[in-house]
Amino acid sequence: MITLYAFKALPAFAVGLARDLRIRWALEEAGLPYQMHLVTPEEVNSPGYRALQPFGQIPAIEEDGFRLFESGSIILHIGERSDALIPRDPAAKARAITWIFAAVNTIEPAIRPLLMLDLFHTGEEWAKAQRSNAEATIKKRLNELAVALGDRAYLEGSFTAGDLVMTTVLRMLRHTDLVEAEPRLQAHLKRCEARPAFQRALVGHMAVYEPA
Amino acid sequence: MITLYAFKALPAFAVGLARDLRIRWALEEAGLPYQMHLVTPEEVNSPGYRALQPFGQIPAIEEDGFRLFESGSIILHIGERSDALIPRDPAAKARAITWIFAAVNTIEPAIRPLLMLDLFHTGEEWAKAQRSNAEATIKKRLNELAVALGDRAYLEGSFTAGDLVMTTVLRMLRHTDLVEAEPRLQAHLKRCEARPAFQRALVGHMAVYEPA
Repeated sequence: MITLYAFKALPAFAVGLARDLRIRWALEEAGLPYQMHLVTPEEVNSPGYRALQPFGQIPAIEEDGFRLFESGSIILHIGERSDALIPRDPAAKARAITWIFAAVNTIEPAIRPLLMLDLFHTGEEWAKAQRSNAEATIKKRLNELAVALGDRAYLEGSFTAGDLVMTTVLRMLRHTDLVEAEPRLQAHLKRCEARPAFQRALVGHMAVYEPA
Repeated sequence: MITLYAFKALPAFAVGLARDLRIRWALEEAGLPYQMHLVTPEEVNSPGYRALQPFGQIPAIEEDGFRLFESGSIILHIGERSDALIPRDPAAKARAITWIFAAVNTIEPAIRPLLMLDLFHTGEEWAKAQRSNAEATIKKRLNELAVALGDRAYLEGSFTAGDLVMTTVLRMLRHTDLVEAEPRLQAHLKRCEARPAFQRALVGHMAVYEPA
Protein backbone atom coordinates (compact mmCIF):
# COMPACT_ATOMS: atom_id res chain seq x y z
CA MET A 1 0.00 0.00 0.00
CA ILE A 2 1.08 3.60 -0.64
CA THR A 3 2.20 5.58 2.41
CA LEU A 4 1.63 9.32 2.06
CA TYR A 5 3.75 11.64 4.21
CA ALA A 6 2.15 14.84 5.50
CA PHE A 7 2.91 17.19 8.39
CA LYS A 8 1.48 16.29 11.80
CA ALA A 9 0.63 19.94 12.43
CA LEU A 10 0.01 22.91 10.14
CA PRO A 11 -0.25 26.66 10.72
CA ALA A 12 -3.87 27.80 10.29
CA PHE A 13 -3.23 29.44 6.90
CA ALA A 14 -2.06 26.13 5.43
CA VAL A 15 -5.00 23.99 6.56
CA GLY A 16 -6.91 23.07 3.39
CA LEU A 17 -3.96 24.12 1.24
CA ALA A 18 -1.01 21.89 2.21
CA ARG A 19 0.06 19.71 -0.66
CA ASP A 20 -0.78 16.37 0.85
CA LEU A 21 -4.34 17.38 -0.11
CA ARG A 22 -3.60 17.17 -3.84
CA ILE A 23 -2.04 13.73 -3.44
CA ARG A 24 -5.01 12.51 -1.37
CA TRP A 25 -7.27 13.83 -4.15
CA ALA A 26 -5.27 12.10 -6.89
CA LEU A 27 -5.31 8.82 -4.96
CA GLU A 28 -9.06 9.14 -4.45
CA GLU A 29 -9.62 9.82 -8.17
CA ALA A 30 -7.46 6.81 -9.01
CA GLY A 31 -9.19 4.64 -6.43
CA LEU A 32 -5.88 3.65 -4.83
CA PRO A 33 -5.85 2.89 -1.10
CA TYR A 34 -3.26 4.66 1.04
CA GLN A 35 -2.17 5.15 4.61
CA MET A 36 -0.82 8.32 6.20
CA HIS A 37 2.48 8.92 7.95
CA LEU A 38 2.33 12.20 9.88
CA VAL A 39 5.72 13.86 10.18
CA THR A 40 6.58 15.66 13.42
CA PRO A 41 8.75 18.82 13.46
CA GLU A 42 11.60 16.70 14.92
CA GLU A 43 11.31 14.08 12.19
CA VAL A 44 11.39 16.71 9.42
CA ASN A 45 15.07 17.39 10.06
CA SER A 46 16.09 13.79 10.71
CA PRO A 47 18.50 12.13 8.26
CA GLY A 48 15.84 9.50 7.62
CA TYR A 49 13.22 11.97 6.46
CA ARG A 50 15.75 14.03 4.52
CA ALA A 51 16.76 10.90 2.62
CA LEU A 52 13.12 10.67 1.53
CA GLN A 53 12.51 14.43 1.09
CA PRO A 54 15.77 16.40 0.74
CA PHE A 55 14.09 19.77 1.40
CA GLY A 56 12.12 18.76 4.50
CA GLN A 57 8.85 19.43 2.71
CA ILE A 58 5.72 17.37 2.27
CA PRO A 59 4.32 15.42 0.49
CA ALA A 60 6.38 12.32 -0.17
CA ILE A 61 5.23 8.78 -0.86
CA GLU A 62 6.65 5.35 -0.26
CA GLU A 63 5.43 2.06 -1.72
CA ASP A 64 7.27 -1.25 -1.46
CA GLY A 65 10.58 0.59 -1.02
CA PHE A 66 9.94 2.98 -3.91
CA ARG A 67 10.13 6.58 -2.73
CA LEU A 68 9.14 9.82 -4.39
CA PHE A 69 8.74 13.49 -3.52
CA GLU A 70 7.44 16.70 -5.21
CA SER A 71 3.65 16.75 -5.54
CA GLY A 72 3.76 17.25 -9.33
CA SER A 73 5.93 14.21 -9.79
CA ILE A 74 3.87 12.08 -7.41
CA ILE A 75 0.71 13.00 -9.31
CA LEU A 76 2.27 12.02 -12.64
CA HIS A 77 3.38 8.76 -11.06
CA ILE A 78 -0.12 8.03 -9.76
CA GLY A 79 -1.50 9.21 -13.11
CA GLU A 80 0.46 6.49 -14.91
CA ARG A 81 -1.83 4.03 -13.13
CA SER A 82 -5.14 5.77 -13.76
CA ASP A 83 -6.58 7.35 -16.89
CA ALA A 84 -8.97 9.20 -14.57
CA LEU A 85 -5.93 11.49 -14.09
CA ILE A 86 -3.72 11.23 -17.17
CA PRO A 87 -5.18 10.16 -20.54
CA ARG A 88 -3.38 7.28 -22.31
CA ASP A 89 -3.31 8.99 -25.73
CA PRO A 90 0.18 10.58 -25.99
CA ALA A 91 -1.04 13.99 -27.25
CA ALA A 92 -3.81 14.21 -24.63
CA LYS A 93 -1.33 13.07 -21.97
CA ALA A 94 1.12 15.82 -22.93
CA ARG A 95 -1.67 18.42 -22.74
CA ALA A 96 -2.72 17.25 -19.27
CA ILE A 97 0.90 17.45 -18.09
CA THR A 98 1.14 20.94 -19.60
CA TRP A 99 -1.62 22.16 -17.30
CA ILE A 100 0.16 20.69 -14.27
CA PHE A 101 3.24 22.71 -15.17
CA ALA A 102 1.14 25.79 -15.99
CA ALA A 103 -0.39 25.52 -12.51
CA VAL A 104 2.88 25.20 -10.59
CA ASN A 105 5.18 27.25 -12.83
CA THR A 106 2.97 29.98 -14.36
CA ILE A 107 -0.07 30.51 -12.11
CA GLU A 108 1.52 29.75 -8.73
CA PRO A 109 4.53 32.08 -9.29
CA ALA A 110 2.00 34.87 -9.99
CA ILE A 111 0.16 34.07 -6.74
CA ARG A 112 3.12 33.59 -4.39
CA PRO A 113 4.19 37.23 -4.02
CA LEU A 114 0.67 38.21 -2.91
CA LEU A 115 0.56 35.28 -0.52
CA MET A 116 3.89 36.28 1.03
CA LEU A 117 2.72 39.89 1.42
CA ASP A 118 -0.61 38.88 2.96
CA LEU A 119 0.85 36.26 5.29
CA PHE A 120 4.05 37.87 6.48
CA HIS A 121 4.01 41.61 5.79
CA THR A 122 0.48 42.84 6.50
CA GLY A 123 0.45 46.48 7.53
CA GLU A 124 4.02 47.23 6.42
CA GLU A 125 4.10 50.37 4.27
CA TRP A 126 6.23 48.97 1.44
CA ALA A 127 3.99 45.89 1.29
CA LYS A 128 0.91 48.02 0.58
CA ALA A 129 2.56 49.52 -2.48
CA GLN A 130 3.73 46.10 -3.70
CA ARG A 131 0.33 44.53 -3.12
CA SER A 132 -1.41 46.30 -6.00
CA ASN A 133 1.35 45.20 -8.39
CA ALA A 134 1.03 41.65 -7.11
CA GLU A 135 -2.75 41.72 -7.58
CA ALA A 136 -2.46 43.10 -11.10
CA THR A 137 -0.10 40.26 -12.07
CA ILE A 138 -2.55 37.67 -10.73
CA LYS A 139 -5.55 39.30 -12.47
CA LYS A 140 -3.73 39.17 -15.80
CA ARG A 141 -2.84 35.50 -15.42
CA LEU A 142 -6.31 34.50 -14.21
CA ASN A 143 -7.90 36.27 -17.15
CA GLU A 144 -5.58 34.46 -19.55
CA LEU A 145 -6.44 31.18 -17.86
CA ALA A 146 -10.18 31.92 -18.07
CA VAL A 147 -9.82 32.65 -21.80
CA ALA A 148 -7.93 29.38 -22.29
CA LEU A 149 -10.64 27.48 -20.41
CA GLY A 150 -13.38 29.15 -22.46
CA ASP A 151 -16.72 27.41 -22.20
CA ARG A 152 -15.28 23.98 -21.49
CA ALA A 153 -16.09 22.17 -18.25
CA TYR A 154 -12.41 21.29 -17.75
CA LEU A 155 -9.15 22.63 -19.21
CA GLU A 156 -8.99 19.90 -21.85
CA GLY A 157 -12.73 19.14 -21.97
CA SER A 158 -12.59 16.17 -19.59
CA PHE A 159 -11.14 16.21 -16.08
CA THR A 160 -7.41 15.50 -15.83
CA ALA A 161 -4.66 15.87 -13.26
CA GLY A 162 -4.13 19.32 -14.83
CA ASP A 163 -7.48 20.49 -13.45
CA LEU A 164 -6.64 18.87 -10.12
CA VAL A 165 -3.35 20.70 -9.63
CA MET A 166 -4.77 23.96 -11.02
CA THR A 167 -7.62 23.79 -8.50
CA THR A 168 -5.24 23.32 -5.57
CA VAL A 169 -3.19 26.29 -6.79
CA LEU A 170 -6.25 28.55 -7.24
CA ARG A 171 -7.35 27.66 -3.71
CA MET A 172 -4.30 29.62 -2.49
CA LEU A 173 -6.35 32.72 -3.37
CA ARG A 174 -9.28 31.75 -1.12
CA HIS A 175 -8.61 34.77 1.13
CA THR A 176 -9.23 37.11 -1.85
CA ASP A 177 -12.02 37.61 -4.41
CA LEU A 178 -9.66 37.30 -7.38
CA VAL A 179 -11.00 33.97 -8.65
CA GLU A 180 -14.63 35.10 -8.20
CA ALA A 181 -13.79 38.01 -10.52
CA GLU A 182 -13.42 35.48 -13.36
CA PRO A 183 -16.80 33.67 -13.45
CA ARG A 184 -15.71 30.85 -15.77
CA LEU A 185 -12.70 30.16 -13.57
CA GLN A 186 -14.78 30.30 -10.43
CA ALA A 187 -17.24 27.82 -11.96
CA HIS A 188 -14.33 25.54 -12.89
CA LEU A 189 -12.98 25.71 -9.33
CA LYS A 190 -16.39 24.88 -7.83
CA ARG A 191 -16.89 22.06 -10.38
CA CYS A 192 -13.56 20.51 -9.42
CA GLU A 193 -14.12 20.94 -5.69
CA ALA A 194 -17.55 19.29 -6.03
CA ARG A 195 -16.00 16.04 -7.27
CA PRO A 196 -16.57 13.25 -4.77
CA ALA A 197 -12.86 12.37 -4.80
CA PHE A 198 -11.96 15.93 -3.76
CA GLN A 199 -14.59 15.89 -1.04
CA ARG A 200 -13.24 12.61 0.36
CA ALA A 201 -9.68 13.97 0.22
CA LEU A 202 -10.69 17.17 1.99
CA VAL A 203 -12.49 15.28 4.76
CA GLY A 204 -9.38 13.16 5.32
CA HIS A 205 -7.11 16.21 5.33
CA MET A 206 -9.34 18.22 7.70
CA ALA A 207 -9.67 15.29 10.09
CA VAL A 208 -5.92 15.56 10.73
CA TYR A 209 -5.68 19.32 11.15
CA GLU A 210 -9.04 20.28 12.61
CA PRO A 211 -10.08 17.30 14.72
CA ALA A 212 -13.71 17.44 15.78
CA MET B 1 10.27 18.88 -37.95
CA ILE B 2 9.76 20.53 -34.55
CA THR B 3 9.26 24.30 -34.57
CA LEU B 4 10.41 26.00 -31.36
CA TYR B 5 8.89 29.38 -30.49
CA ALA B 6 11.10 31.93 -28.76
CA PHE B 7 11.01 35.70 -28.41
CA LYS B 8 12.57 37.76 -31.22
CA ALA B 9 14.08 40.14 -28.68
CA LEU B 10 14.98 39.82 -24.99
CA PRO B 11 15.90 42.31 -22.28
CA ALA B 12 19.62 42.00 -21.42
CA PHE B 13 18.97 40.23 -18.09
CA ALA B 14 17.13 37.39 -19.85
CA VAL B 15 19.75 36.65 -22.51
CA GLY B 16 21.21 33.24 -21.65
CA LEU B 17 18.30 32.54 -19.27
CA ALA B 18 15.12 32.59 -21.41
CA ARG B 19 13.45 29.22 -21.43
CA ASP B 20 13.85 28.48 -25.12
CA LEU B 21 17.43 27.65 -24.03
CA ARG B 22 16.33 24.61 -22.02
CA ILE B 23 14.26 23.30 -24.94
CA ARG B 24 17.15 23.81 -27.37
CA TRP B 25 19.34 21.91 -24.91
CA ALA B 26 16.85 19.05 -24.57
CA LEU B 27 16.51 18.81 -28.36
CA GLU B 28 20.30 18.77 -28.73
CA GLU B 29 20.64 16.02 -26.09
CA ALA B 30 17.94 14.02 -27.90
CA GLY B 31 19.51 14.65 -31.31
CA LEU B 32 16.22 15.97 -32.71
CA PRO B 33 16.40 18.62 -35.47
CA TYR B 34 14.35 21.78 -35.00
CA GLN B 35 13.66 25.15 -36.54
CA MET B 36 13.02 28.40 -34.74
CA HIS B 37 10.02 30.72 -34.95
CA LEU B 38 10.89 34.08 -33.39
CA VAL B 39 7.85 35.80 -31.90
CA THR B 40 7.61 39.60 -32.20
CA PRO B 41 6.01 41.74 -29.47
CA GLU B 42 2.98 42.23 -31.77
CA GLU B 43 2.59 38.51 -32.39
CA VAL B 44 2.72 37.71 -28.65
CA ASN B 45 -0.74 39.21 -28.13
CA SER B 46 -2.28 37.93 -31.36
CA PRO B 47 -5.14 35.42 -31.12
CA GLY B 48 -3.03 32.98 -33.14
CA TYR B 49 -0.15 32.97 -30.68
CA ARG B 50 -2.45 32.95 -27.66
CA ALA B 51 -4.14 29.83 -29.06
CA LEU B 52 -0.69 28.21 -28.94
CA GLN B 53 0.48 29.82 -25.66
CA PRO B 54 -2.41 31.18 -23.55
CA PHE B 55 -0.13 33.28 -21.33
CA GLY B 56 1.91 34.93 -24.10
CA GLN B 57 5.07 33.29 -22.82
CA ILE B 58 7.76 31.28 -24.53
CA PRO B 59 8.64 28.51 -25.25
CA ALA B 60 6.05 26.62 -27.21
CA ILE B 61 6.52 23.91 -29.81
CA GLU B 62 4.62 22.74 -32.85
CA GLU B 63 5.14 19.52 -34.80
CA ASP B 64 2.79 18.22 -37.50
CA GLY B 65 -0.11 20.13 -35.96
CA PHE B 66 0.65 19.00 -32.39
CA ARG B 67 1.19 21.98 -30.11
CA LEU B 68 2.56 22.23 -26.61
CA PHE B 69 3.64 24.90 -24.11
CA GLU B 70 5.30 25.06 -20.65
CA SER B 71 8.98 24.20 -20.77
CA GLY B 72 8.66 21.40 -18.20
CA SER B 73 5.96 19.71 -20.23
CA ILE B 74 7.85 20.14 -23.51
CA ILE B 75 10.93 18.56 -21.96
CA LEU B 76 8.94 15.56 -20.72
CA HIS B 77 7.44 15.24 -24.19
CA ILE B 78 10.89 15.32 -25.83
CA GLY B 79 12.14 13.00 -23.10
CA GLU B 80 9.60 10.36 -24.11
CA ARG B 81 11.61 10.07 -27.33
CA SER B 82 15.09 9.96 -25.82
CA ASP B 83 16.50 8.03 -22.90
CA ALA B 84 19.34 10.56 -22.91
CA LEU B 85 16.78 12.72 -21.05
CA ILE B 86 14.30 10.40 -19.31
CA PRO B 87 15.24 6.82 -18.39
CA ARG B 88 12.85 4.09 -19.57
CA ASP B 89 12.75 2.26 -16.22
CA PRO B 90 9.57 3.51 -14.44
CA ALA B 91 11.23 4.16 -11.06
CA ALA B 92 14.21 5.94 -12.63
CA LYS B 93 11.81 7.90 -14.86
CA ALA B 94 9.79 9.04 -11.84
CA ARG B 95 12.99 10.16 -10.06
CA ALA B 96 14.12 12.19 -13.11
CA ILE B 97 10.70 13.86 -13.30
CA THR B 98 10.92 14.59 -9.56
CA TRP B 99 14.04 16.69 -10.12
CA ILE B 100 12.30 18.65 -12.88
CA PHE B 101 9.54 19.55 -10.44
CA ALA B 102 12.05 20.22 -7.65
CA ALA B 103 13.80 22.66 -10.00
CA VAL B 104 10.70 24.59 -11.05
CA ASN B 105 8.58 24.28 -7.91
CA THR B 106 11.08 24.17 -4.99
CA ILE B 107 14.36 25.79 -6.10
CA GLU B 108 12.96 28.39 -8.50
CA PRO B 109 10.36 29.73 -6.01
CA ALA B 110 13.23 30.28 -3.57
CA ILE B 111 15.20 32.18 -6.24
CA ARG B 112 12.41 34.33 -7.71
CA PRO B 113 12.00 36.83 -4.85
CA LEU B 114 15.73 37.68 -4.99
CA LEU B 115 15.56 37.99 -8.76
CA MET B 116 12.60 40.36 -8.53
CA LEU B 117 14.37 42.48 -5.90
CA ASP B 118 17.62 42.64 -7.89
CA LEU B 119 15.95 43.34 -11.23
CA PHE B 120 13.18 45.72 -10.32
CA HIS B 121 13.79 47.20 -6.86
CA THR B 122 17.52 47.89 -6.59
CA GLY B 123 18.27 50.72 -4.20
CA GLU B 124 14.80 50.84 -2.62
CA GLU B 125 15.07 50.82 1.18
CA TRP B 126 12.48 48.09 1.82
CA ALA B 127 14.14 45.90 -0.80
CA LYS B 128 17.46 45.98 1.06
CA ALA B 129 15.82 44.58 4.18
CA GLN B 130 14.00 41.90 2.20
CA ARG B 131 17.11 40.95 0.27
CA SER B 132 18.88 39.28 3.20
CA ASN B 133 15.77 37.16 3.92
CA ALA B 134 15.60 36.20 0.26
CA GLU B 135 19.28 35.24 0.24
CA ALA B 136 18.91 33.16 3.41
CA THR B 137 16.04 31.19 1.84
CA ILE B 138 18.12 30.44 -1.24
CA LYS B 139 21.18 29.43 0.80
CA LYS B 140 19.08 26.94 2.75
CA ARG B 141 17.63 25.38 -0.39
CA LEU B 142 20.98 25.24 -2.20
CA ASN B 143 22.58 23.56 0.78
CA GLU B 144 19.78 20.97 0.87
CA LEU B 145 20.23 20.40 -2.86
CA ALA B 146 24.00 20.01 -2.45
CA VAL B 147 23.46 17.44 0.30
CA ALA B 148 21.02 15.54 -1.92
CA LEU B 149 23.53 15.59 -4.79
CA GLY B 150 26.30 14.37 -2.50
CA ASP B 151 29.32 13.08 -4.37
CA ARG B 152 27.40 11.99 -7.44
CA ALA B 153 28.17 13.52 -10.83
CA TYR B 154 24.47 14.04 -11.51
CA LEU B 155 21.35 14.13 -9.30
CA GLU B 156 20.50 10.50 -10.03
CA GLY B 157 24.02 9.35 -10.90
CA SER B 158 23.62 9.69 -14.68
CA PHE B 159 22.50 12.83 -16.51
CA THR B 160 18.74 13.26 -16.92
CA ALA B 161 16.31 16.03 -17.82
CA GLY B 162 16.24 16.73 -14.07
CA ASP B 163 19.85 17.93 -14.18
CA LEU B 164 19.04 19.91 -17.32
CA VAL B 165 16.16 21.87 -15.82
CA MET B 166 17.99 22.29 -12.49
CA THR B 167 20.98 23.79 -14.32
CA THR B 168 18.81 26.31 -16.16
CA VAL B 169 17.19 27.30 -12.86
CA LEU B 170 20.53 27.66 -11.02
CA ARG B 171 21.77 29.87 -13.88
CA MET B 172 19.21 32.46 -12.69
CA LEU B 173 21.67 33.11 -9.83
CA ARG B 174 24.59 33.92 -12.15
CA HIS B 175 24.63 37.54 -10.91
CA THR B 176 25.37 36.28 -7.36
CA ASP B 177 27.98 34.01 -5.74
CA LEU B 178 25.34 31.80 -4.09
CA VAL B 179 25.98 28.70 -6.21
CA GLU B 180 29.77 29.10 -5.87
CA ALA B 181 29.23 28.95 -2.08
CA GLU B 182 28.19 25.29 -2.52
CA PRO B 183 31.21 23.67 -4.23
CA ARG B 184 29.44 20.40 -5.12
CA LEU B 185 26.57 22.31 -6.68
CA GLN B 186 28.92 24.61 -8.53
CA ALA B 187 30.79 21.57 -9.91
CA HIS B 188 27.47 20.04 -11.00
CA LEU B 189 26.49 23.26 -12.75
CA LYS B 190 29.83 23.46 -14.58
CA ARG B 191 29.62 19.75 -15.48
CA CYS B 192 26.17 20.23 -17.00
CA GLU B 193 27.12 23.42 -18.82
CA ALA B 194 30.19 21.68 -20.28
CA ARG B 195 28.01 19.12 -22.08
CA PRO B 196 28.34 19.54 -25.86
CA ALA B 197 24.54 19.64 -26.22
CA PHE B 198 24.33 22.60 -23.82
CA GLN B 199 27.15 24.36 -25.64
CA ARG B 200 25.40 23.94 -29.00
CA ALA B 201 22.12 25.15 -27.49
CA LEU B 202 23.80 28.21 -25.98
CA VAL B 203 25.50 29.13 -29.26
CA GLY B 204 22.14 28.93 -31.04
CA HIS B 205 20.41 30.99 -28.34
CA MET B 206 23.13 33.66 -28.24
CA ALA B 207 23.19 33.96 -32.05
CA VAL B 208 19.60 35.24 -31.86
CA TYR B 209 20.04 37.70 -28.99
CA GLU B 210 23.62 38.86 -29.34
CA PRO B 211 24.33 38.77 -33.07
CA ALA B 212 28.02 39.15 -33.88
